Amino acid sequence: MNSQKVGILGGGQLGRMMVEAASRLNLEVVILDSPLDAPAKQIESTQEHIAGAFNDETKIRELAGKVDVLTVEIEHVNAGVLSSLEKNGHVVHPSAFTVLTIQDKFVQKNHLVAHGVPVADYMETPDRASVEAAGQKFGYPFMLKSKTMAYDGKGNYVVKSEQDIQPAMEALSKTPLYAEKWAPFTKELAVMVVRRANGEIRSYPVVETIHKNSICHLVIAPAQVDGAVLRRAQAVAENAIKSFPGAGVFGVEMFVLEDESILLNEIAPRPHNSGHYTIEACETSQYENHLRAILDMPLGSTAMKVPASIMVNILGESESMEECYRPCQEALAVDGATIHLYGKKACRAGRKMGHITVVGESMMQTQQRLAPILKAIEPNVERPLTLRPLVGMIMGSDSDLPVMKVGAQILKQFGIPFELSIVSAHRTPLRMVEYAKSAAQRGLMAIIAGAGGAAHLPGMVAAMTPLPVIGVPVKGSSLDGVDSLHSIVQMPRGIPVATVAINNSTNAALLAIRILGASIPGILKQMEDYMEKMEGEVMTKVGKLDNVGWENY
Amino acid sequence: MNSQKVGILGGGQLGRMMVEAASRLNLEVVILDSPLDAPAKQIESTQEHIAGAFNDETKIRELAGKVDVLTVEIEHVNAGVLSSLEKNGHVVHPSAFTVLTIQDKFVQKNHLVAHGVPVADYMETPDRASVEAAGQKFGYPFMLKSKTMAYDGKGNYVVKSEQDIQPAMEALSKTPLYAEKWAPFTKELAVMVVRRANGEIRSYPVVETIHKNSICHLVIAPAQVDGAVLRRAQAVAENAIKSFPGAGVFGVEMFVLEDESILLNEIAPRPHNSGHYTIEACETSQYENHLRAILDMPLGSTAMKVPASIMVNILGESESMEECYRPCQEALAVDGATIHLYGKKACRAGRKMGHITVVGESMMQTQQRLAPILKAIEPNVERPLTLRPLVGMIMGSDSDLPVMKVGAQILKQFGIPFELSIVSAHRTPLRMVEYAKSAAQRGLMAIIAGAGGAAHLPGMVAAMTPLPVIGVPVKGSSLDGVDSLHSIVQMPRGIPVATVAINNSTNAALLAIRILGASIPGILKQMEDYMEKMEGEVMTKVGKLDNVGWENY
Repeated sequence: MNSQKVGILGGGQLGRMMVEAASRLNLEVVILDSPLDAPAKQIESTQEHIAGAFNDETKIRELAGKVDVLTVEIEHVNAGVLSSLEKNGHVVHPSAFTVLTIQDKFVQKNHLVAHGVPVADYMETPDRASVEAAGQKFGYPFMLKSKTMAYDGKGNYVVKSEQDIQPAMEALSKTPLYAEKWAPFTKELAVMVVRRANGEIRSYPVVETIHKNSICHLVIAPAQVDGAVLRRAQAVAENAIKSFPGAGVFGVEMFVLEDESILLNEIAPRPHNSGHYTIEACETSQYENHLRAILDMPLGSTAMKVPASIMVNILGESESMEECYRPCQEALAVDGATIHLYGKKACRAGRKMGHITVVGESMMQTQQRLAPILKAIEPNVERPLTLRPLVGMIMGSDSDLPVMKVGAQILKQFGIPFELSIVSAHRTPLRMVEYAKSAAQRGLMAIIAGAGGAAHLPGMVAAMTPLPVIGVPVKGSSLDGVDSLHSIVQMPRGIPVATVAINNSTNAALLAIRILGASIPGILKQMEDYMEKMEGEVMTKVGKLDNVGWENY
Repeated sequence: MNSQKVGILGGGQLGRMMVEAASRLNLEVVILDSPLDAPAKQIESTQEHIAGAFNDETKIRELAGKVDVLTVEIEHVNAGVLSSLEKNGHVVHPSAFTVLTIQDKFVQKNHLVAHGVPVADYMETPDRASVEAAGQKFGYPFMLKSKTMAYDGKGNYVVKSEQDIQPAMEALSKTPLYAEKWAPFTKELAVMVVRRANGEIRSYPVVETIHKNSICHLVIAPAQVDGAVLRRAQAVAENAIKSFPGAGVFGVEMFVLEDESILLNEIAPRPHNSGHYTIEACETSQYENHLRAILDMPLGSTAMKVPASIMVNILGESESMEECYRPCQEALAVDGATIHLYGKKACRAGRKMGHITVVGESMMQTQQRLAPILKAIEPNVERPLTLRPLVGMIMGSDSDLPVMKVGAQILKQFGIPFELSIVSAHRTPLRMVEYAKSAAQRGLMAIIAGAGGAAHLPGMVAAMTPLPVIGVPVKGSSLDGVDSLHSIVQMPRGIPVATVAINNSTNAALLAIRILGASIPGILKQMEDYMEKMEGEVMTKVGKLDNVGWENY
């Protein structure tokens, strides 16, 4: 497919998953890492790999002599050597400049600010006095951070008060430091962005990351946040990556603040833990796209091919391999779960030993599937996930609530995530336009609109969204609801409204559920069960009528 | 995860994909095959593999000495040795009996018939006279087949007349023969069935296979045939596999005849070409489930995780590797396409060099995605695929056709596969029950029902399917259609009908498309485009009215 040989600095799990992708494309890959049985080397027997550190100049030059393109699976490499190799005509992706800029988080921040990327306030803190000044400038708590060699929360210290300054500086004494204003985030998001050697950029869906002890714990794809926030996060990530020369895949971690604005936290110039899910859940994995990008081959689609996915990391609990296999044993019995173990021979607390990706037909189902695996990892922790609504229920006025409430109960009973609000065609026409126009991008799959009298809401919303809109004619004080019914149902050719019976929000909810069920087998099954239960209830009455007789019924 | 070491007889592409699955589970695998760089050995560097033939007794015994469980990636192994090893307490999956029975296709047929599995008539043909007798018994054409060493059409001969007998017997002179009655099939189906060491059985979805020169060319998953046929095929396959002792995954190939009955064609006791698609399209791949099965671990879900998938084999065209890479280069630019190359160093005509699996949000999209890849393989061949309908359109009487036709045109214009038929609630009540009850299993996602007057059809169908049902009130000769409208819309709580305007089958079709679009982004996009076009048309009229003035309009 491509005759250029790839050399990877680092042979851990990220290198391993790159090799997996390379094998499928018949690409040749040589690994530089110390262990002879490094995870990546275990699944590549056609090449003579190099045993040595990925910051050892001689070894890096030896690797460069064997391959056509150099890349990294970790940013803490000897970037100076990469830079010198680049000057001598070697191809290095991402570029040595990019690795150099990113591996020093303070330099990274300066670079991002210079390119207009929003980040939390920060300042250099070469000495105790400047750390104190940071406390005064940013207030407490603030973050004291190592400029270099920081990963998985190592090199970060939350300074809660002036008393913390001394211990913080001692804990981080090995590297130069800088201070960062505390970002009061409501969620953490991440995006994998891939940049081809020719400059083309594609980004994967925005995911939500949940950390445990500062190490990535869960990755929820797609992130269950409003579509507008997702688009903003994607733009921030893409703009940031556009500012770095060279090709490859980049992990961009971000904060969402209370006001839904985005701050970029940090960037990894390589495949990233928050993109593991792409192997099972996307049309092309981050690993394959990294290879395509650095070899200047066409990029693969970054779209999700399944509706939902959650990844959970398998960390060592102790030195016992058995303990870390426990959640994996659990996962064997979970539909949609794929286990990735990295072939590491020694287990220790906090070491990344593998990960499990669970996919499902909906986020509801994926979350349920994940539950027994999570329970094996952290038996006493609840991690409730707020799901993005799939059904939007709106009504022209709060006077319609008594009617609409009955349908809302049905949605709740079926466990369908939904939202319920007032949107009036006549009193809040602009709100209605905004609601209808954004509904599909926000992740809704159907809209239920209740209205009485002139009852314009369902039809007007249907005119501004491609989603199915269900209309509930609400009975007013005159005309028995026939006015609402005719107004809702008699739409002109081109714009349909799915009209249900007068005041029958139950049927509107059931119709929305049937619409979801058309593509989500679990929900179709729920509907079948519901219909069977209804039949059962009538049959019970049949029995009762038979038993007690019609006169005593 | 499991400390038992697995030994595989054969290190080709099937072994390679087994190894890929094994690595992810930290399972140890040793390969027996002649080339030192056999495809499976290329991606496994932690073990000392064995160089030797998979029918070499000494080598098989050497392998057995190194591992806990023996398995095969090809059935043409020395099954006698496997049998002797089994007697000495070695674990062999599938069992030596199963391999022995299946590797002789005549013995396989006898076994299947003895277990009540439907197969085409066949007879043993030890000599010329018996081949002639077969011609008389079965008529021409019939199949003359090698009992052993047959694969990819090799060992089969279509005997079209008595004159063909001599050349057929010469062509197949190396092995004993049997004759088989010609099965006038309309489609070929296949199912992967996995059987765990403890006897548990799960089967993958039924796929359609399309052969070219007797070699598997395309695998369409799920098969685009009626749900009732799929269930029948799955039952035949599962019953067949239940009759074989031992564990593992089995490929079952079947014929569908004109009358929709199923004949089993043949079985492979191992992962199979028709199951490659499971890697990208199912929750657990056939390779991983093969390993789980033989190690007596819980089986993984066999369900599809994407709506549709088509696999195409990459065969060598000549000795040129470039030529076989051509469709792969094409695939790099195709969303949803995953390329699998097997690392084979030498290319030759007809050799399986790799495969490409395309997945998509719908079979329509998947087929469109596949087109440029297929064109690179066979530029002058059209392979039209009949798609399973997604929308069912029914009406109480052919007198409703003029009204319903308009909606049908819309579905056609959007490229939605649909069916249109007459189902009368009052004149064909049992047909209506059958239609409604089977709709979801047949693959429909929405039903449009048109009816006039009493107009019971939409509501009655809705009462017997969990799918969304759209009702079109057809205007009769009296009451202006209000009778139909009220009859359709005023459904009792529990059973919704999505009612559209009187006679407005356009809106019914558009609503069905919106329902599909709720889960299929490509269709949602089509709906957005349609709405934009409508807006454009009105804007053109606005312009015209402005230009020519209202008096001259």
